[in-house]
Amino acid sequence: MRQGHEVTLFASGDSQTRARLQAPCARALRLDPHCKDPLPYHFIALHRLARSADGFDIIHFHTDYLHFSLFAQCWGKTLTTLHGRLDLPDLAPILREFPMMPLASISDAQRAPVPWANWYSTVYHGLPTSLYAGGCGDGGYLAFIGRICREKRPDWAIEIAHRAGMPLAIAAKVDKVDRTYYKTRISPLLKDPLIEFIGEIGDSEKGAFLGDAVALLFPIDWPEPFGLALIEAMANGTPIIAFGRGSVPEIVDHGVTGYIVGDVDEAVAAIPLAKALDRVAIRRRFEERFSVERMAHDYLALYDTVLRCGTVGAVLNSAAAAQAAANAA
Amino acid sequence: MRQGHEVTLFASGDSQTRARLQAPCARALRLDPHCKDPLPYHFIALHRLARSADGFDIIHFHTDYLHFSLFAQCWGKTLTTLHGRLDLPDLAPILREFPMMPLASISDAQRAPVPWANWYSTVYHGLPTSLYAGGCGDGGYLAFIGRICREKRPDWAIEIAHRAGMPLAIAAKVDKVDRTYYKTRISPLLKDPLIEFIGEIGDSEKGAFLGDAVALLFPIDWPEPFGLALIEAMANGTPIIAFGRGSVPEIVDHGVTGYIVGDVDEAVAAIPLAKALDRVAIRRRFEERFSVERMAHDYLALYDTVLRCGTVGAVLNSAAAAQAAANAA
Repeated sequence: MRQGHEVTLFASGDSQTRARLQAPCARALRLDPHCKDPLPYHFIALHRLARSADGFDIIHFHTDYLHFSLFAQCWGKTLTTLHGRLDLPDLAPILREFPMMPLASISDAQRAPVPWANWYSTVYHGLPTSLYAGGCGDGGYLAFIGRICREKRPDWAIEIAHRAGMPLAIAAKVDKVDRTYYKTRISPLLKDPLIEFIGEIGDSEKGAFLGDAVALLFPIDWPEPFGLALIEAMANGTPIIAFGRGSVPEIVDHGVTGYIVGDVDEAVAAIPLAKALDRVAIRRRFEERFSVERMAHDYLALYDTVLRCGTVGAVLNSAAAAQAAANAA
Repeated sequence: MRQGHEVTLFASGDSQTRARLQAPCARALRLDPHCKDPLPYHFIALHRLARSADGFDIIHFHTDYLHFSLFAQCWGKTLTTLHGRLDLPDLAPILREFPMMPLASISDAQRAPVPWANWYSTVYHGLPTSLYAGGCGDGGYLAFIGRICREKRPDWAIEIAHRAGMPLAIAAKVDKVDRTYYKTRISPLLKDPLIEFIGEIGDSEKGAFLGDAVALLFPIDWPEPFGLALIEAMANGTPIIAFGRGSVPEIVDHGVTGYIVGDVDEAVAAIPLAKALDRVAIRRRFEERFSVERMAHDYLALYDTVLRCGTVGAVLNSAAAAQAAANAA
């Protein structure tokens, strides 16, 4: 919008946006205790969008594959960003069924299970540069942020801190599905006086939390398609110590914004190195690579590509139809 | 098909049918351990159907609301049977968004939460009359069949049998979500020597199981939209003792095919009455009201109604469009 485009956002009524808002429901579905099934509201939004599709130059979807069947006919003016992990076995069949839908990935690593899909580009996420300022990292603790779950390995983060003899602050939510894991595997480890569990924190608290941290620990054990915590740390000038799975090697500049390591031993060894990194340079790298402006620029360029391909597709389609009609006559 | 119609069935490849089969997946999704998300296959089937929709006179959906957005434009040649309970809060918004889609209910009681929806008719389920023969009921036991879950109240069935001093045989599956309920609430009650838990049984075993039973106990505690077990019992000539919730009063003919009761006391008192019912008359009532032939006849009549309304709708639509064009000129 800041670049002069007209934008309509299809999202819940409590969305904070300067775009024209089309809301199929009043409240964010994941926060609405009355909502048992979010799917109907997605269909309502998609149906309203389909009826007004002629009024848009380009339609950018963040709804997985839900819209594929409804918008297959006008694929040439659509772009779909896939946000999740793509190694679920039921995803490949639907990507094969809709080979025309233009797709964007959030990292190159994300594509690994379906490299043959109709990928147009990778667009890394971005954050407003004004959201955080560079912190000074003088809190004396390591930080873990995100969700408590097996894949994010908070237990490894605790082990790293314990072995380094440094305090670890854990700011993380515990989703319903992860409660047993939290209780049985993580809760007992919190008795260690070095470990502090803070719970879930909002954007406004993240600045102080990450900005004061010596380093962010990101010892993931799954191919995370994009670790938003990584660029949140960078925005605060905080060095990263991350396991090299999934998108990590694309996001972390080894030796500049952090260190990519292979196991707990290497992570412990990387702490003094990370501490010595230039926090101003980390923040600068964030501004260069992960600002919203860069993300918006990338997407606008991608919209152009999509529309060009869509036009070519439409021309080829009508040529084929004309040929078929001529053959039939 | 036996009535001379051409039928195409969109379903998994292992479906047993004489119709032309269009399969988006090889195996029934609920039995496929590799399937984590059944939705993609539904969209694949709906997409293929949408592309070939012109070739069909009428399209009968059993896919809840999944197809509404894709087929809203040709609602006049569609019928949707809703099979589930309709009191979920997220269902009303999507029924309101697609008020044109013609709907069939599987009982009148099913409609209660959304009586204003676009109901065309109720069509009760049917079973092939050859599937079961009337049994003689001389097994000396009461029967409970279906799923172990809170709503079906196997605990009440056990209490009824215990109070009557009669054996109860329970043929029921335990779904994953119901395992805790089974373990904590039902398993302890199975120590009673009168109670026998058989587990899940197939169609071939149901004939002997129900045919030998003195009566079926159906002490439900939820508005069940259609109790298939009720007509399975009737097909075997087995009297029913059922709590009067949901569709029960529409399916059970009180004093003919069974007794509708209000609580455990009344159920116990109804056992000698049910035992005295004429099993041949019960089977006859099944053949009259719940055969597949009757179901097919009802649906064919309903297809006619839908197509007539659809044609009227199309005429009105093009008249409105012509009027709008004339006004614009």
